[in-house]
Amino acid sequence: MTDLSFDDSPRLPAGFRCASIHCGIKPSGGDLALFASDIPGAAAGVFTKSLVPGAPVVVGRELIRPGCLQAVVVNSGVSNVGTGTDGILRARRMGVAAARELGIAPELVLMSSTGVIGVPLPVERIEGAMPELVAELQHDPMRGAEGIMTTDTYPKAISLAVGSGALTLVAKGSGMIEPNMATMLCYVMTDAALEPSELDAVLRRVVDETLNMVSVDTDTSTSDTCVAIANGRRGPVPRAVFESALGAALTRMAEMLARDGEGASRLLRVTVRRAADDGEARLIAKSLVNSPLVKTMVHGGDPNVGRILMAVGKCIDCRVDPARLVATISGVTVFGGGGLTDFDESKVRTLLGMDCVDLGVELGLGEGEAQAWGCDLTSGYITENAAYYSS
Amino acid sequence: MTDLSFDDSPRLPAGFRCASIHCGIKPSGGDLALFASDIPGAAAGVFTKSLVPGAPVVVGRELIRPGCLQAVVVNSGVSNVGTGTDGILRARRMGVAAARELGIAPELVLMSSTGVIGVPLPVERIEGAMPELVAELQHDPMRGAEGIMTTDTYPKAISLAVGSGALTLVAKGSGMIEPNMATMLCYVMTDAALEPSELDAVLRRVVDETLNMVSVDTDTSTSDTCVAIANGRRGPVPRAVFESALGAALTRMAEMLARDGEGASRLLRVTVRRAADDGEARLIAKSLVNSPLVKTMVHGGDPNVGRILMAVGKCIDCRVDPARLVATISGVTVFGGGGLTDFDESKVRTLLGMDCVDLGVELGLGEGEAQAWGCDLTSGYITENAAYYSS
Repeated sequence: MTDLSFDDSPRLPAGFRCASIHCGIKPSGGDLALFASDIPGAAAGVFTKSLVPGAPVVVGRELIRPGCLQAVVVNSGVSNVGTGTDGILRARRMGVAAARELGIAPELVLMSSTGVIGVPLPVERIEGAMPELVAELQHDPMRGAEGIMTTDTYPKAISLAVGSGALTLVAKGSGMIEPNMATMLCYVMTDAALEPSELDAVLRRVVDETLNMVSVDTDTSTSDTCVAIANGRRGPVPRAVFESALGAALTRMAEMLARDGEGASRLLRVTVRRAADDGEARLIAKSLVNSPLVKTMVHGGDPNVGRILMAVGKCIDCRVDPARLVATISGVTVFGGGGLTDFDESKVRTLLGMDCVDLGVELGLGEGEAQAWGCDLTSGYITENAAYYSS
Repeated sequence: MTDLSFDDSPRLPAGFRCASIHCGIKPSGGDLALFASDIPGAAAGVFTKSLVPGAPVVVGRELIRPGCLQAVVVNSGVSNVGTGTDGILRARRMGVAAARELGIAPELVLMSSTGVIGVPLPVERIEGAMPELVAELQHDPMRGAEGIMTTDTYPKAISLAVGSGALTLVAKGSGMIEPNMATMLCYVMTDAALEPSELDAVLRRVVDETLNMVSVDTDTSTSDTCVAIANGRRGPVPRAVFESALGAALTRMAEMLARDGEGASRLLRVTVRRAADDGEARLIAKSLVNSPLVKTMVHGGDPNVGRILMAVGKCIDCRVDPARLVATISGVTVFGGGGLTDFDESKVRTLLGMDCVDLGVELGLGEGEAQAWGCDLTSGYITENAAYYSS
């Protein structure tokens, strides 16, 4: 995957356009976005596993079933969650409004909402703004990315070549981010031709190893959605080629989302190897990226290695042998042979101060591997979230 | 349990004494403590489930097996974790030193250590200080409590009557606190007479509903220990009477430990009712006390009710029906009938500013109940833990 390179300026695949405008849900900034293909495409999606899913997730699960979509309309500011049957109605109206303006069937438009929970979606405002939104459709994916931001510090879009066409991702993240689907909103567009079932299988497998391994704060959103549309404009690509490109793109996006977690000052990347199996490797990797004491250690730059042991040790459903455990901080072995190594503390301090900190754990038990992405825990996270509702 | 009242000044049960001194493991303050009965007593203990347990936990599990102890020796500053077989040796030496000075058999003395992980225990220092420690033995449990503190802001001891005798708890908490045993160090002393098997059963049951439901930061310590010694000085008490007293005392201690969590400014108490079963009620209660977004909401005093829904919704192994869910903040119903209620926001803001915030969730599904204790998440937690190792 590593030889796949991203475009310097993200572009949209053939046949796709996007738009974002301010329609007045938020006090300022883009709050309504649209991603649309000029023809229907194969589609697949994964959604939050939350037991209190937002209305757009409930409706989206229905819409994705036939495996065909042409557009996604997204608002930020209000998430349309905890809004009962009235919320379902408003979600549908939002999709219908976009479909009408695009001149396509309503079942081809999926909708997403992100923002405050429990507030009625101001759907009249969205309906009123639809002509303006569709008129804005153009070719820069950053425009769409701007329209779906909440607490992100910058808009996120990436693209790369796949076969003779392109693969583009637009996403938002920041807080209330830990898997169980993915996390966040992420739209995958490609002009490659794939069968819906093929797209679905590839998307699920890749999301599971990328977006599902990102955690900013252990809190699973009620609105998580990752939807892919393949309009086939550039013809078929071998499944393996598409899967490699999607893997590289979602890995990169996972890192961007983790690094831009609320209040984060560093990316925390955890690699677990030689675990008893992949499932246990995933649990241990997640335990490390989620531990407040590991996250504050990374923030403070203090090599308190015991916290790595602690975070491994608390995975009580996994197999761990402390005598075989080897732990590294950005390549430096800090624990092994049952005890702390005689590592160079000032060097490790410097490494902990870098923009990306790599923690590695080898269990010495089997072939299980996993990678997870998170960020440090800072006062910025507290400040941002102690007052999010009022802002 | 509610009619059981605590002593205004904590006292030790008949036959028990305790001591604490500064022996030089920490730069200042008490760092070595001893709790001792004048005769051996029935004993029971529960320990961390961490897969990387400290040496004192490994040795403690052996020592507790025969169900008989007379003393516990505890140091703070160094946890003797991640120290391999040499750590085991040092833990044993610590117990032997206390036993020799007390003139009792080594197998009657359990040891605990709390503090930094991965550093060799300075056991020579502990051995050298033992005569002074034993000479200090006296009747105020606060002296012992002072000797086991790490980042606690005050020493924690409580006592109450049980039968014609007394029940006393001495504990430390603060950070790296979430169950799987209990969490923290907690010593239970009583002059009631109980069989070891009876003491063990009662201790496990009560710890499971109290200390095991406390979480400051989801991080399970490698040293968690709760040990009970019943020396029988005041004769037998009915098991139910003892269990009520222990339940009341450990509930109170759970609240004290949660409220004094690192950086905490409020106690967060969560009650889940009418869940499908008790197990699911526990998972949901834990999800609420552990959610960074719920904890920062409580810190900020902002009634962002959606975060309560989110924290319930992410318990994907539980049964939840959003239409039946009722949520309360300190008695005020904020969600019900599938949507937010028309609650008085300024009143809820005031309630969120109190020293103790109660979150209630009713699932409307069954008879499952649980309570959990935690605290808000503040910049104080970050500051304290970004620099703990160096301090």
